[in-house]
Amino acid sequence: MFQPPKGTRDFLPEDAEKLQFVIDTARVVFEKYGFKPLETPAFESFELLAAKGGGGEAIKDEIYYFKDKGERELGLRFDLTVPLARVIANNPNIPKPFKRYQIGKAWRYDNPQALRYREFWQADIDTIGSSSQTADAECVAAVVECLQKLGIKNFFVNVGNRRLVEDILLSIGIGKEKVNSVFRVIDKLNKIGAEEVKKELNSIGVAASDILEITELKTLKEIEKRFGTSLGLKEFEEFFEAAKYFGIEKFIRLNLSLVRGLDYYTGTVFEVLVGDEKVSFGGGGRYDKLIELYGGQPIPATGISIGVDRIIAAMEKSKLFNFDSKTKVFVAAVNDEVRPAALKLAQNLRKNNITADLDLANRKLGKQLEYAAATAANFAAIVGPDELKKKSVVLRNMKTGKEKTVKIENLALEIQKHS
Amino acid sequence: MFQPPKGTRDFLPEDAEKLQFVIDTARVVFEKYGFKPLETPAFESFELLAAKGGGGEAIKDEIYYFKDKGERELGLRFDLTVPLARVIANNPNIPKPFKRYQIGKAWRYDNPQALRYREFWQADIDTIGSSSQTADAECVAAVVECLQKLGIKNFFVNVGNRRLVEDILLSIGIGKEKVNSVFRVIDKLNKIGAEEVKKELNSIGVAASDILEITELKTLKEIEKRFGTSLGLKEFEEFFEAAKYFGIEKFIRLNLSLVRGLDYYTGTVFEVLVGDEKVSFGGGGRYDKLIELYGGQPIPATGISIGVDRIIAAMEKSKLFNFDSKTKVFVAAVNDEVRPAALKLAQNLRKNNITADLDLANRKLGKQLEYAAATAANFAAIVGPDELKKKSVVLRNMKTGKEKTVKIENLALEIQKHS
Repeated sequence: MFQPPKGTRDFLPEDAEKLQFVIDTARVVFEKYGFKPLETPAFESFELLAAKGGGGEAIKDEIYYFKDKGERELGLRFDLTVPLARVIANNPNIPKPFKRYQIGKAWRYDNPQALRYREFWQADIDTIGSSSQTADAECVAAVVECLQKLGIKNFFVNVGNRRLVEDILLSIGIGKEKVNSVFRVIDKLNKIGAEEVKKELNSIGVAASDILEITELKTLKEIEKRFGTSLGLKEFEEFFEAAKYFGIEKFIRLNLSLVRGLDYYTGTVFEVLVGDEKVSFGGGGRYDKLIELYGGQPIPATGISIGVDRIIAAMEKSKLFNFDSKTKVFVAAVNDEVRPAALKLAQNLRKNNITADLDLANRKLGKQLEYAAATAANFAAIVGPDELKKKSVVLRNMKTGKEKTVKIENLALEIQKHS
Repeated sequence: MFQPPKGTRDFLPEDAEKLQFVIDTARVVFEKYGFKPLETPAFESFELLAAKGGGGEAIKDEIYYFKDKGERELGLRFDLTVPLARVIANNPNIPKPFKRYQIGKAWRYDNPQALRYREFWQADIDTIGSSSQTADAECVAAVVECLQKLGIKNFFVNVGNRRLVEDILLSIGIGKEKVNSVFRVIDKLNKIGAEEVKKELNSIGVAASDILEITELKTLKEIEKRFGTSLGLKEFEEFFEAAKYFGIEKFIRLNLSLVRGLDYYTGTVFEVLVGDEKVSFGGGGRYDKLIELYGGQPIPATGISIGVDRIIAAMEKSKLFNFDSKTKVFVAAVNDEVRPAALKLAQNLRKNNITADLDLANRKLGKQLEYAAATAANFAAIVGPDELKKKSVVLRNMKTGKEKTVKIENLALEIQKHS
């Protein structure tokens, strides 16, 4: 028996409908915020994939790498940011700021574990060509509205700023060469706790208590009072001001321990959390130095990515998927003689934009109705010879079991009344 | 400069919107016909991919083949039928008939040429577990409605039947062992012409004129008159009867030269053509022996696949994409002082479900309006200090250039009036 490859999964209809619901909801919100769709290939040249964050050859262990018959080195994309950076470099004349969304799969050769797949869905929005913090706040605002529209209640967005933390680190005498190492340690604070972070900070030769004090600051005022003003602080203030105008203050939490491990982030960074779930549901930030790596001009950029698989899991946990079955009516035939009439009726309902199904297996009525129930039809329209003579059918509500005779000419209307 | 890998392409926003329009249209129609969504991984085990049509090792040359770090042999899926067959085998309890649609990418290591990509989009519908010709006709009916909804005018569906042609071939004395070879030759009739087909038929030792006579028959009556009745003819008659009930007779053409080259087809086969374009826009047929190859029970199946990239190309050629820009309004700020008000206004419009964009680059008004034009906004709402005092903005129609002053409280309504 063949199985889906390790770390991947099928979405059977019930799950595929959930996936589609999340994707459709995100699309509508992203478009409303002025983001436009982009679609790129599933695989890219290996050289391109290796360029991000100086991954180089080592990245081969983390991706699906292969060669085509022409010995070109390729790999499945591991995110949607690298293809975007390439597209920007390839198309220098795209009007800027370029606001794009892309919803699609990405692949990583991780160890599969709960909520971590080797094939996973991402929904990304990015704004390329704006250095304004309004762009950062707008990305967060769009994601906030998306999560609201999905019905997720207890989410929040942690917001930090690497530029600000760097300013502070330099001001307290940490050498510039140590800044990225400190970032990588404090980013783990939530995962490994203060004690472990202290140890790691001491081991790279910086005073742990100074650093931990920074991560505990919770307001812009406290930061200014303790460390004075700086360009990073000014940028961070601008983010919160824009966030206020977008009406999303209550969804965001200032958190200076959030600096994100990846070196290409340059300013404000975000992380989406839901309740007290340990995993992140999305994240991103400003990456003003990344695009030029791919042969483009230096160009400021910011964006955020949400993990669709984790969103689905959180929604399932909170029972947020309660859309109605899409099959409105199953048209059943009482005997073979009326099958053509049943078929024509089903097709006629479809022409009236009603989702209709019919028996394709020449089954008896009882089996047809079992199938209608198994495929979650809302109604069964039962076509019988006597009713047909009176241009009527028996309409059964599959939930209540109640039946009534309905004129065929009124059938579409009768079904729509109950949708 | 990095490029998309050979044979693949990016869909920039304008093209991505076309792609999305075709996918959305197909989805709505397929769902109306009772097909349910399925989503499967981009890659499958190589062994699975090699099983179809006895491709074996040779198929490595036609697909993207790779190994993961655990030395598992994998390959990108080359169609959506193989994953479906696996899903059916993996999930024996799915209610049958199982009607599923899947719209997604597939990959083949072909020589790239006009309208042939190495990464391409397919939209498939299949019905698993019905041997009724109603299922075959329903698949064609759904595709017909899909093409109609897309506005494609001059399409038709060629329909043939392998079982029938096999019955005829056996009745005129062709040996059963030669049937598949004859199929492969006559399937090329449209491509290579009668003369070449004659040569090839003679070279495999069958009388060319007998065969060509079969392919010229154009009605069920002619077939019966010339070769008498058979099980294959009965099946074919049932298809046309169902097609009549579905109201699609005028879109289908009986064509016995259509037998499709792939050996796994067993009965009625289809091919979608548009105008006098030489390439096929879709195809499929009945494949009652395929599912069991993947470890499932023997189970009848039929389906049809349309090539989304070719549909898009045909629609572009006939100028069928004429949807309005999605950006309804760009909110411009006359100076820095009113920027916060402009931002809040844009966000407020979005909360009223209006697609709104705003300046993220701190540009002067003239540049903002140029950007609004470049991103195809329908309106610009110009926020200025004097108008703001009167709780108004200037609304410019970007197509006509006409402007009028509108109260902010009426702005959403005013914009919706014109959508």
